[in-house]
Amino acid sequence: MSGERPKPIDPLRVPRFAGPLTFARLPYREDLVGVDVAVLGVPFDGGTTFRPGPRFGPRKVRELSTLLRTYNPALGVSPFELITVVDGGDLPVVPTHIEDTFERVEAALRPILGLGVVPLCIGGDHSVTLPILRAVAARHGPVALVHIDAHTDLWDEYYGRKYSHGTTFRRAIEEGLVRPEASVQVGMHGPVFDAEDYELPRKFGLLMVPLAEIETYGIDEAVRTIRRRVHGPAYLSFDIDVVDPAFAPGTGTPEAGGLTPREALRLVRGLAGLPFVGFDLVEVSPPYDQGDITALLAANIAYEFICLAAMAKQSSQTEA
Amino acid sequence: MSGERPKPIDPLRVPRFAGPLTFARLPYREDLVGVDVAVLGVPFDGGTTFRPGPRFGPRKVRELSTLLRTYNPALGVSPFELITVVDGGDLPVVPTHIEDTFERVEAALRPILGLGVVPLCIGGDHSVTLPILRAVAARHGPVALVHIDAHTDLWDEYYGRKYSHGTTFRRAIEEGLVRPEASVQVGMHGPVFDAEDYELPRKFGLLMVPLAEIETYGIDEAVRTIRRRVHGPAYLSFDIDVVDPAFAPGTGTPEAGGLTPREALRLVRGLAGLPFVGFDLVEVSPPYDQGDITALLAANIAYEFICLAAMAKQSSQTEA
Amino acid sequence: MSGERPKPIDPLRVPRFAGPLTFARLPYREDLVGVDVAVLGVPFDGGTTFRPGPRFGPRKVRELSTLLRTYNPALGVSPFELITVVDGGDLPVVPTHIEDTFERVEAALRPILGLGVVPLCIGGDHSVTLPILRAVAARHGPVALVHIDAHTDLWDEYYGRKYSHGTTFRRAIEEGLVRPEASVQVGMHGPVFDAEDYELPRKFGLLMVPLAEIETYGIDEAVRTIRRRVHGPAYLSFDIDVVDPAFAPGTGTPEAGGLTPREALRLVRGLAGLPFVGFDLVEVSPPYDQGDITALLAANIAYEFICLAAMAKQSSQTEA
Amino acid sequence: MSGERPKPIDPLRVPRFAGPLTFARLPYREDLVGVDVAVLGVPFDGGTTFRPGPRFGPRKVRELSTLLRTYNPALGVSPFELITVVDGGDLPVVPTHIEDTFERVEAALRPILGLGVVPLCIGGDHSVTLPILRAVAARHGPVALVHIDAHTDLWDEYYGRKYSHGTTFRRAIEEGLVRPEASVQVGMHGPVFDAEDYELPRKFGLLMVPLAEIETYGIDEAVRTIRRRVHGPAYLSFDIDVVDPAFAPGTGTPEAGGLTPREALRLVRGLAGLPFVGFDLVEVSPPYDQGDITALLAANIAYEFICLAAMAKQSSQTEA
Amino acid sequence: MSGERPKPIDPLRVPRFAGPLTFARLPYREDLVGVDVAVLGVPFDGGTTFRPGPRFGPRKVRELSTLLRTYNPALGVSPFELITVVDGGDLPVVPTHIEDTFERVEAALRPILGLGVVPLCIGGDHSVTLPILRAVAARHGPVALVHIDAHTDLWDEYYGRKYSHGTTFRRAIEEGLVRPEASVQVGMHGPVFDAEDYELPRKFGLLMVPLAEIETYGIDEAVRTIRRRVHGPAYLSFDIDVVDPAFAPGTGTPEAGGLTPREALRLVRGLAGLPFVGFDLVEVSPPYDQGDITALLAANIAYEFICLAAMAKQSSQTEA
Amino acid sequence: MSGERPKPIDPLRVPRFAGPLTFARLPYREDLVGVDVAVLGVPFDGGTTFRPGPRFGPRKVRELSTLLRTYNPALGVSPFELITVVDGGDLPVVPTHIEDTFERVEAALRPILGLGVVPLCIGGDHSVTLPILRAVAARHGPVALVHIDAHTDLWDEYYGRKYSHGTTFRRAIEEGLVRPEASVQVGMHGPVFDAEDYELPRKFGLLMVPLAEIETYGIDEAVRTIRRRVHGPAYLSFDIDVVDPAFAPGTGTPEAGGLTPREALRLVRGLAGLPFVGFDLVEVSPPYDQGDITALLAANIAYEFICLAAMAKQSSQTEA
Repeated sequence: MSGERPKPIDPLRVPRFAGPLTFARLPYREDLVGVDVAVLGVPFDGGTTFRPGPRFGPRKVRELSTLLRTYNPALGVSPFELITVVDGGDLPVVPTHIEDTFERVEAALRPILGLGVVPLCIGGDHSVTLPILRAVAARHGPVALVHIDAHTDLWDEYYGRKYSHGTTFRRAIEEGLVRPEASVQVGMHGPVFDAEDYELPRKFGLLMVPLAEIETYGIDEAVRTIRRRVHGPAYLSFDIDVVDPAFAPGTGTPEAGGLTPREALRLVRGLAGLPFVGFDLVEVSPPYDQGDITALLAANIAYEFICLAAMAKQSSQTEA
Repeated sequence: MSGERPKPIDPLRVPRFAGPLTFARLPYREDLVGVDVAVLGVPFDGGTTFRPGPRFGPRKVRELSTLLRTYNPALGVSPFELITVVDGGDLPVVPTHIEDTFERVEAALRPILGLGVVPLCIGGDHSVTLPILRAVAARHGPVALVHIDAHTDLWDEYYGRKYSHGTTFRRAIEEGLVRPEASVQVGMHGPVFDAEDYELPRKFGLLMVPLAEIETYGIDEAVRTIRRRVHGPAYLSFDIDVVDPAFAPGTGTPEAGGLTPREALRLVRGLAGLPFVGFDLVEVSPPYDQGDITALLAANIAYEFICLAAMAKQSSQTEA
Repeated sequence: MSGERPKPIDPLRVPRFAGPLTFARLPYREDLVGVDVAVLGVPFDGGTTFRPGPRFGPRKVRELSTLLRTYNPALGVSPFELITVVDGGDLPVVPTHIEDTFERVEAALRPILGLGVVPLCIGGDHSVTLPILRAVAARHGPVALVHIDAHTDLWDEYYGRKYSHGTTFRRAIEEGLVRPEASVQVGMHGPVFDAEDYELPRKFGLLMVPLAEIETYGIDEAVRTIRRRVHGPAYLSFDIDVVDPAFAPGTGTPEAGGLTPREALRLVRGLAGLPFVGFDLVEVSPPYDQGDITALLAANIAYEFICLAAMAKQSSQTEA
Repeated sequence: MSGERPKPIDPLRVPRFAGPLTFARLPYREDLVGVDVAVLGVPFDGGTTFRPGPRFGPRKVRELSTLLRTYNPALGVSPFELITVVDGGDLPVVPTHIEDTFERVEAALRPILGLGVVPLCIGGDHSVTLPILRAVAARHGPVALVHIDAHTDLWDEYYGRKYSHGTTFRRAIEEGLVRPEASVQVGMHGPVFDAEDYELPRKFGLLMVPLAEIETYGIDEAVRTIRRRVHGPAYLSFDIDVVDPAFAPGTGTPEAGGLTPREALRLVRGLAGLPFVGFDLVEVSPPYDQGDITALLAANIAYEFICLAAMAKQSSQTEA
Repeated sequence: MSGERPKPIDPLRVPRFAGPLTFARLPYREDLVGVDVAVLGVPFDGGTTFRPGPRFGPRKVRELSTLLRTYNPALGVSPFELITVVDGGDLPVVPTHIEDTFERVEAALRPILGLGVVPLCIGGDHSVTLPILRAVAARHGPVALVHIDAHTDLWDEYYGRKYSHGTTFRRAIEEGLVRPEASVQVGMHGPVFDAEDYELPRKFGLLMVPLAEIETYGIDEAVRTIRRRVHGPAYLSFDIDVVDPAFAPGTGTPEAGGLTPREALRLVRGLAGLPFVGFDLVEVSPPYDQGDITALLAANIAYEFICLAAMAKQSSQTEA
Repeated sequence: MSGERPKPIDPLRVPRFAGPLTFARLPYREDLVGVDVAVLGVPFDGGTTFRPGPRFGPRKVRELSTLLRTYNPALGVSPFELITVVDGGDLPVVPTHIEDTFERVEAALRPILGLGVVPLCIGGDHSVTLPILRAVAARHGPVALVHIDAHTDLWDEYYGRKYSHGTTFRRAIEEGLVRPEASVQVGMHGPVFDAEDYELPRKFGLLMVPLAEIETYGIDEAVRTIRRRVHGPAYLSFDIDVVDPAFAPGTGTPEAGGLTPREALRLVRGLAGLPFVGFDLVEVSPPYDQGDITALLAANIAYEFICLAAMAKQSSQTEA
């Protein structure tokens, strides 16, 4: 049956610069029945507090995803053989209004989740994770969160407003969308507002693995920490600004001294087997990118997410 | 007394790349008592529907304004000798919320207008003109509008929302901030949604001088048309996208085939003597600029606004 | 019936940075039965002799075409109401082989022309016009050529090879694809290899209107010259390098001192009513573009082509 | 004999991106005996007061000059058939010291002028014109100056120093290198420091044709004015910033509202027949260029200079 | 009392793209009485021998420093609580003259040092360190130098001139401004002119820790080496070109294979507690930067310098 | 005798931005008698399947090679003292035809190899390695290949064609140009088409050291593996895309997660002493480069190749 699964267009036959522009050159499909993973754009950046631009993230990540190939030697998996993956297009947004956007994103995601699809959302800024989590929690209950980011995004408000890309996870916890005791924040670095900011994750019941710890103990130890803690339906949110600005200049709040791509990829691959029910990759800001290297890295990370989903399905079938 | 007016820092003594960054290297001042024209940033772009970025407009226009010099040979005027001009800093905004921003901008502008200051606002996207007009009309009553732009910005709504950079002037007319019978829209070009779009200005009582007419009859005829129509307290709103994308690539909704800088400058200079009580220059989007040429042109246009204000004061004094 | 024609996705409801990436946000369709105009990419640049890059032209022109709107006030026409226009995707190419590409392009175009579709091809470099003309002539016989370009592309060979972007029209004439006596070359400027180069068009029976003549007599006179000469099935080939490098930096063989966009648009609009059976827009090279202004202009010119096709159909129906 | 003159490498045989990098792909030659025109780089920018970068001008202008071809249809001349033109390499400079540079440039130029060579110097910033004029005047006596520029460069000093790119022509006049009564400054525009600045040319005996006059009366009238005034050995100094920043962004002191390339080329071509004994093209600043369009335009203008030199020789031979 | 110290403007209340542009959004102050650390621009690049541009360094580093926050978790310190830090503006320079610049920089710094202020200078090219060291040594006597750089800057002359960015430290040693026996040069890499170049530091009594040693033994060992050697009043000079060009493309003499930002930050943090009386961060060249990542990294390094100064004061108070 | 060898122009006397543009500022020479290593451009990119541009590689690598200096402290060698190195210019290519190019490249290289010269070729895309290997094998017999690359380039065909940058080494093996049993492929990473792709090297008798192994065991272990396997006349082919896109964005098929420059340099230096008879450095694509950092790194790697050649000669002389 796997022979009938949708496949990327073969670049040995149709060049990568030709053909429709979809994620990994997979088919675009509106009907998601029978789909395992749907790649979905969430082109909204009305929650950014410094540089805007991630509204162009989904389109640009799709463009660079044309470079992806089908077999992942690092994980030893051909994901498109194992699961059905399609490009589900973009979720509806209102560029000028964050609350309206949240409503539309959640409303559009709920039926997709209802079909058993695992959403892989390409942002957009980090504010979009909130409506995604609302829809995910509506289906799966509160989730274990793996949050990879330079920042904790646990601030309370900006300019008197509760919604922004810096307040997402405080809102998510307040709304009961996340199980803090099963959740981890990974990769935080750079100056913060206050010594108490570094206490915030603990205050909210989260575990934080700052980049300084990774620098000392290595990626593999971080992976072990995450795996020890995460259980039950899990959600992976990856903010590209965890990566150093040299590798990911195209983002809104860059922090000097971040992860390298090899570390980032190793970190994600280390999560193989965890029971993720959703993914997002956010804060890719094409107007600030240089040579599209941020979008290329983001496409690769999203591809690893698909591999994680494929391996999760594989292992669950093996177990059964 | 003119000898005591604030002057730009002399680039023959302090290089343009040194010193504080203010508009035209004028002093930054929070107390605006006795000021004739205050340059004010409105760094908000939450109303954009395509490319964001104008939130960085005020900073970048200030940066390029360091190239300005003090005597305008085209109009034969040394504006900083005639009037008191300062950089009044940025008006308060809420990057993630358009209504909050509107409230803050209007609230901050009202006392400034109360001092008799002429505000020269650097956007920001074109949505910011609405709260500015609210404050201006509160002080001066409904104004004659000279609106120079590739687009009429008379649409009713985007994605179900009434506020955006494309709906500004419909809202302004609905709210009675503008006297349509004394107002003109100039420079419209490029495809529109519907044949009726070109009827909209007339439907709202405005006169439109599309770019096609300028192409046929020339700038000077457009100037005469404007001067025939405008009377009473007037407001000049200049959207940089009226200029061709080659000269002004740094904008959010570029339209091929626009004005040249020489045409734009001639158009603005032609308005010398009209009784403007406020100005804005909007939609400069630095992330999309190339070699800062959009910001440089914008700085020059804003400088011409200052000259208009200087000449208006000069002629009103001569008359008195 | 016009109500059922495919329409661009409305940017007042779905933002321009969302949704599938097709020309003017029209539907992508592989079945072209009943279609009047199909926009087709020809992503090949193996014929370039200086800067490569036009293989990315179709994708980038589509991207910028999202800014187009549906009513053209300059011509007073709503093209998508009058004719059925779709995005037909990309024609097959072989990036590493020009002869193979020519075969595939021609073979793919012949059945499309057989359906009565007018192809509007987005290049690619100017070599792709040759297989297009082969397919067009196979359907319509030799055509009247309107060739707008900085160069005549009448050279005999480069480095001992007959096919390249500089030899297209000599080959086309040798192969009898063009009726020279009904054809015009417009816009040539810049230094050439030899005084005889300026005699080449006449030697091949073509009429040349160099840019120097346009500078002296104006666009409207050039339009009259074209209209006097062109009759019978006609083909319009537009090389973006006819436009000055400031407006169209994204091209492979730029020539200083070219047309302005307003001149270029006026020139194309002046051809309304001529019986075009095919169009191409070539030599947009995104890697060399600045701020996407070349691609934006190209999208606008292609949109004017669609309007020409709509008006041609309209007038032929009126006559009937 | 003309068959033996050095020729550009033929791009129909060796691609423009291959082969040694010299101006117009002419031979590089250190021995300038028998040479009519030598293209010489003066890679110095220690006289700039705002943006540096012109030290890279010669190299970049050479790079874009590979696009030039051999016959100039606008003037009807094949310059490399008529005169012997070579690339003479770069004159010696001291990047960190303006006086040392002046000494070296003059010292290197004197023997070249002694051979009867017409130097065509590619800057560098406009300060380099002073040592060039010193060498030229040492050979030919004071010259008639045609100075095309956005600025008069007649200031007295910057930061207490007499040498810079803004003081060149005051120094040249003070040193008696120029015959003011036979000289013209053309193209000045943009704000200046003082109303008196516009009186400076007259004060120094020069005639100024500001851009505003060209806008009103046209290029051809400016040409006539120049031709009426210039007589005797003449020198042409062209500052690329006279061209609008859209066409020439790569320069250090851009002024909005400048010439178009077509105007600039027409202006230069209009000088055919004047007895120029030297040329310079200055202020091309590659780090600020966009898509190399400034360098391409500069290469074309320098090519026109060569054509002027060829026509001057031709007419002097005809006369003889 | 710390509550009254100047604080950065809070980005949770005023966005980072609004407000005056000063380092870390600290107040700009001309009166430096009572100030612990003054951030001072030295916008001069007349000493560069390859790519110019660092004259724009101070402005751009300030711009990116708006991203900084107030608490440094890596060092566990809130510097602005512990010491008084302000932006002291730019020191006077003469863009066209290196000796004049040296005089003005030294003259301006002397009274600042006289107030007990620790200067933190943002260059500018590396030549500006010489007048800074002159002023520092005048106050504190010869200093222990920690010089972090890809190059030793110990050359004797360029083009016959003694002053440039490559000769700074030979001059400083010759003038007795540095105590070589307490000084270290760190991070040298890339090809040099001669095998003897690697002997030069030792010849001048300095210790060199080349990058090759760091690659073998790690940053912490380099830190130990520095700490063993440095004693007495110390000065830290950091040339951004020690960092690999991928992370710091915006510099004039890039060397492939440099430090990573994490290494650079760890190196600087390792110096906490050393008695620095001055700092500089030089060779940030914005025209060559990509996505402002060099300036962002530079702003972070300068922030670490402030933390070092804060911790030095803290420890000196604890000791007392 | 070494004193008479060609030397780079000294940048302490002539600035790096002046003078002829040759590799490392070495003399350009057409006569290669007595030359040990000739740097040769192969400006062809007609074999690229995604982004074109490497045709500009040779020119740009030469430009950045002006930053190189003469002594290599990492290897302790002054190569230009030990061997005679010149810039031999560009090999002939036909931009529009891959087979013609192959013929010309091979034909031009054969006599050069006949002189005993070691060619160091700067690409161009990776297809050019095939004609180089043909010429090398004609002289030296089949070679031991050290192939450093993100990809194996062992695919069979693209779009039905046998020649492209992705099929080079399958062709080379089929043609008997390489001794697989003495050859290694190093650095492969990123997704591939199929699990079997990772078996291809072994199937062809090659040994592969993927980047994942280097990540685990380090560069030095990879060096040992290479040195154990390589014997007899050897050829080193280095595709810049083995380096991470942050350090080498200017390439056509970037793969996230590649080598760092320090790893790449260490890898190459580790090969000192191996008997290389030829080198290439390919896939530098300047249109996609950012701040020229790819070309700078490529110039440094090519410089290390020269050092390898110098050390090989040195050791062979010592042995004799």
